[in-house]
Amino acid sequence: MAEKFVSERNLKFMLYEVFDAETLTQYEYYAEHGREIFDLVLDTALKLGRDILQPLLREMDQNPPQFSDGAVKVHPMVRDWMRTCGEGGWISALAPYDHGGQQLPLLIGAVIRFIFSAANYSASVYPLLTAGAAHLIESFGSEALQETYIPPMYAGQWQGTMALTEPQAGSSLSDLSTLAEPTDRGYYLLRGQKIFISASDHDGVDNIVNLLLARIKGAPPGVKGISLFVVPKFRPEADGSLVPNDLQVAGSFHKLGYRGSPICQLSLGENNDCRGYLVGEPHQGLAYMFQMMNEARIDVGMSATAIASAAYYASLQYARERAQGRRLGSKDPTQPPVPIIEHADVKRMLLFQRAVVEGSFALLLQCSVYADRTRVLTGEEREKNELLLELLTPVAKTYPSEMGVLSVSQGLQILGGYGYCDEFPLELFYRDARIHPIHEGTTGIHGLDLLGRKMMMKGGKAAQLYLREVEQTIGQAREVADLAPYAVRLQAALEKLKEVTASLVQLSREKGPETFLADATLYLEFFGIIAVAWQWLVQALVVQQALEKELSEDESNFYQGKFQTCSYFFRYELPKIEGLVHRLLEGDGLTVKMKAELFE
Amino acid sequence: MAEKFVSERNLKFMLYEVFDAETLTQYEYYAEHGREIFDLVLDTALKLGRDILQPLLREMDQNPPQFSDGAVKVHPMVRDWMRTCGEGGWISALAPYDHGGQQLPLLIGAVIRFIFSAANYSASVYPLLTAGAAHLIESFGSEALQETYIPPMYAGQWQGTMALTEPQAGSSLSDLSTLAEPTDRGYYLLRGQKIFISASDHDGVDNIVNLLLARIKGAPPGVKGISLFVVPKFRPEADGSLVPNDLQVAGSFHKLGYRGSPICQLSLGENNDCRGYLVGEPHQGLAYMFQMMNEARIDVGMSATAIASAAYYASLQYARERAQGRRLGSKDPTQPPVPIIEHADVKRMLLFQRAVVEGSFALLLQCSVYADRTRVLTGEEREKNELLLELLTPVAKTYPSEMGVLSVSQGLQILGGYGYCDEFPLELFYRDARIHPIHEGTTGIHGLDLLGRKMMMKGGKAAQLYLREVEQTIGQAREVADLAPYAVRLQAALEKLKEVTASLVQLSREKGPETFLADATLYLEFFGIIAVAWQWLVQALVVQQALEKELSEDESNFYQGKFQTCSYFFRYELPKIEGLVHRLLEGDGLTVKMKAELFE
Repeated sequence: MAEKFVSERNLKFMLYEVFDAETLTQYEYYAEHGREIFDLVLDTALKLGRDILQPLLREMDQNPPQFSDGAVKVHPMVRDWMRTCGEGGWISALAPYDHGGQQLPLLIGAVIRFIFSAANYSASVYPLLTAGAAHLIESFGSEALQETYIPPMYAGQWQGTMALTEPQAGSSLSDLSTLAEPTDRGYYLLRGQKIFISASDHDGVDNIVNLLLARIKGAPPGVKGISLFVVPKFRPEADGSLVPNDLQVAGSFHKLGYRGSPICQLSLGENNDCRGYLVGEPHQGLAYMFQMMNEARIDVGMSATAIASAAYYASLQYARERAQGRRLGSKDPTQPPVPIIEHADVKRMLLFQRAVVEGSFALLLQCSVYADRTRVLTGEEREKNELLLELLTPVAKTYPSEMGVLSVSQGLQILGGYGYCDEFPLELFYRDARIHPIHEGTTGIHGLDLLGRKMMMKGGKAAQLYLREVEQTIGQAREVADLAPYAVRLQAALEKLKEVTASLVQLSREKGPETFLADATLYLEFFGIIAVAWQWLVQALVVQQALEKELSEDESNFYQGKFQTCSYFFRYELPKIEGLVHRLLEGDGLTVKMKAELFE
Repeated sequence: MAEKFVSERNLKFMLYEVFDAETLTQYEYYAEHGREIFDLVLDTALKLGRDILQPLLREMDQNPPQFSDGAVKVHPMVRDWMRTCGEGGWISALAPYDHGGQQLPLLIGAVIRFIFSAANYSASVYPLLTAGAAHLIESFGSEALQETYIPPMYAGQWQGTMALTEPQAGSSLSDLSTLAEPTDRGYYLLRGQKIFISASDHDGVDNIVNLLLARIKGAPPGVKGISLFVVPKFRPEADGSLVPNDLQVAGSFHKLGYRGSPICQLSLGENNDCRGYLVGEPHQGLAYMFQMMNEARIDVGMSATAIASAAYYASLQYARERAQGRRLGSKDPTQPPVPIIEHADVKRMLLFQRAVVEGSFALLLQCSVYADRTRVLTGEEREKNELLLELLTPVAKTYPSEMGVLSVSQGLQILGGYGYCDEFPLELFYRDARIHPIHEGTTGIHGLDLLGRKMMMKGGKAAQLYLREVEQTIGQAREVADLAPYAVRLQAALEKLKEVTASLVQLSREKGPETFLADATLYLEFFGIIAVAWQWLVQALVVQQALEKELSEDESNFYQGKFQTCSYFFRYELPKIEGLVHRLLEGDGLTVKMKAELFE
């Protein structure tokens, strides 16, 4: 299998034509970089995807992690892959130079993640989680923790994890109950259970470093009493040896997809000797963890987009090669059948897939640009970018995750019966994709986050900044003849966004938080469609400029295809907000009033 | 596992309160039946579902059919189950008395299918296909064919199949190329390939009887040259022995779900001795097969609904038992968490599941009522019911199939991480459900069928009859205070249906069939939402009458829950037509114009 899973042309279009990655190098922090380095990084990532990751996609799916004797065995590629990532600097790519990193822009990091996840999502998770966990220690851990843990993590010898969820708490982090008892020996003794922790045990590394939330004995209840700890599987001793840390693997889950990577249940301190090392200050754990969680949310959106990308190219190839039926209106059975890509309904499905993939990708890169700017800017400009990133994080996590599932499903549909069978990768992508609306906060949680928190924070300042960003794009598009109709449509959608938001705020005052937030999930869907429409218009502006120049046939096809996909989004996807607006303006609290006993 | 998979209360509500099954017994054909028999049949079906089918659901999924040495081995339950179905009269339940059947109404047959499929979809397929194939021989086969094949099929000793699809033809039946060469010995010699044929080889029966489409040598091209044959795996000889019929199993597919049942590729006549027996007249095969296909399409809709039903009850149980988080506005972490069914967003998801399940179920039973009436009525009344059934068949196949997938997915979401793991059945339902938008005609094919054929047939007569049916319900609902607002909404939707249809007919005249039918899939979605809204109003009329009476608490909860679910449908689902109407009225032919080379 050496199938296309991403479009190199689109990566470069987004990086250099839309988001102008090179302008970042004008800031000191990124001054040593430039397009040549970026291109080299991307080319190497694509090569790894093609040569190492994608060829093992099916094999890893068919040979999921095995749990026996309290330990998890994974596919042997994991050890090689982690060492490759360590040696190639992929785990430390975004870390600062003084931690041994390469200080690459987050924008480039996002594209690396996209490539790896598109080639083999399960495999991409191991280095990704390690980088996130190491980054957390880098930001908030003591020098001693940094010196002990970061080098083997960046080398791909130790695995990092984020250990939040507990069996009884699920999405409700305020109910975390893992206990950390202080000692006078520089560590805490931990006791509790963690569940659904990705890569939290496997034999592809020599140690596991869990970045774990727990409650120090006597801490206040709720989220205010949560602290962050480093809890390794093995404690590194002064002589370099590794000592078991009383951290048992209670089991590994059998999952619908994402089967190349284990998710485990952990039991801490069964023998009262599970040592944890406090990161930063006591009771600040959730705030620290949000750094990793917010990064992870963008990563989830990106991985969802990546799987949808691989699915798109698999469907496209099939649609080009598979001859079946004739064009409507020319049904002479003695004529040869046409490739199914000639059927309008198949083109509609392919356009849907592409519109979701490239629209989501754009939104996620937009978020990475905001994130990069918070690294290099200061003062008000920094705050602006921070607020925009915070506002868009639930959207950039959820739209790609929810629509990614539908996009892959549409791709499967293009293959008909073959899509349902494992000769083709669509059924695998369909299973892998379904995790994304669940992990790193379910869609429902992100709806509450967007409407209940992000839209309201700082008196709606983030929302105002966002409207201004979109209106700026609309203003530019109004000046371009072919885009003016879409500018008008997007402006109308934005007015609906304002109207619905105002109506919900009013509802909040009149009927309280439950009715206000009852349809927050639908609000998130509504918001997401508009955000992606905006990103399509951002791309179309660049496209229209390009189309004015003399172009090769390939280049002309690329830009025209982009424009058609943008048109598709405005004509097929954006109208979906109409039903949502209708519902969101009703404000009748139907679900709040529904009594549990009325469900049969 | 003894989990609820259907609601008995709802089955009886639909059968006796909404569709009044007993009125069918006023016709001579059904005169020997009555409510007592119907109840006995349903109770027995439920018992089989609980005791035999559901307990093996996971086991059959985990032990899919094995193909080796040219034969398929299935789970040992299949043999027992087929014999149980044979001995219990389940395969012949709908057949006329004079063929050894029980002449049960199709309405009752539909409920039986619902129960079996909800308990274990894969297992339900074996007797179902056998019944459909036997029915086809009954309707069109010679007496000799009937005598030879029907008794062992009804006894559950032989498996029936419908063998249409070929590797090169897929959805395009006009390209079928399996060749049938006449001999002077009363049979034809067949040669060709069939693909994706459900249950077309397995060791749970003694023989396989394929109802197979092929082209007699010299037949005209296209669908006009297709004939129907009985092609058994083993030829029954006069002495009762079974002789191999040169029908090889070329392979069994590994599928995403629906794993308890094999789908195979067949190779006919490799040794030039595969004998087929013509059913009915030459070149009439497709018309005959449409009897089985139309029944099978309703069955697919019913199975999709059934899986969604089992998923709904699994999600509901979890939502009731799982405590997590607190109600918004009372977030005190020292208070105990509430069952997640108390969260508005979870109630919204459950209402969505239930609205899809019970709305689809109603539409499918409505189709069965029309089908029963075509059996017992004559003249114009019969034609009316036939036309309504024909019109609604693509809708009743597709709405439950497409929405069933989303409904199960929403159910999986309610369980969060647990929904993604195989400790709970949601991930299995999610995989099983995905077949339905594909088999018995993909969604795209049914869109073309509805808009291009059914809406237009006999000068739009079926469409007119349908509008009258819906308007009659609206008229009744207008008279009931609590329903009047929904009557108004449905009338408005119906006006949109007329407007969109007229606009598309105009488009057809101006721009030809490709542009006319380009968004036929969306038209089908639009039509389906309205049809199910209609069926919710049909149910709500009965509910409102019931609520006027003195009721026990359980009964009152049942009817109130129904009404709330109807309200949910009108407030959350029906508005989805707005975006579709917007799109369907644009008529810009975007997908027709999109060139294949513009897809990257």
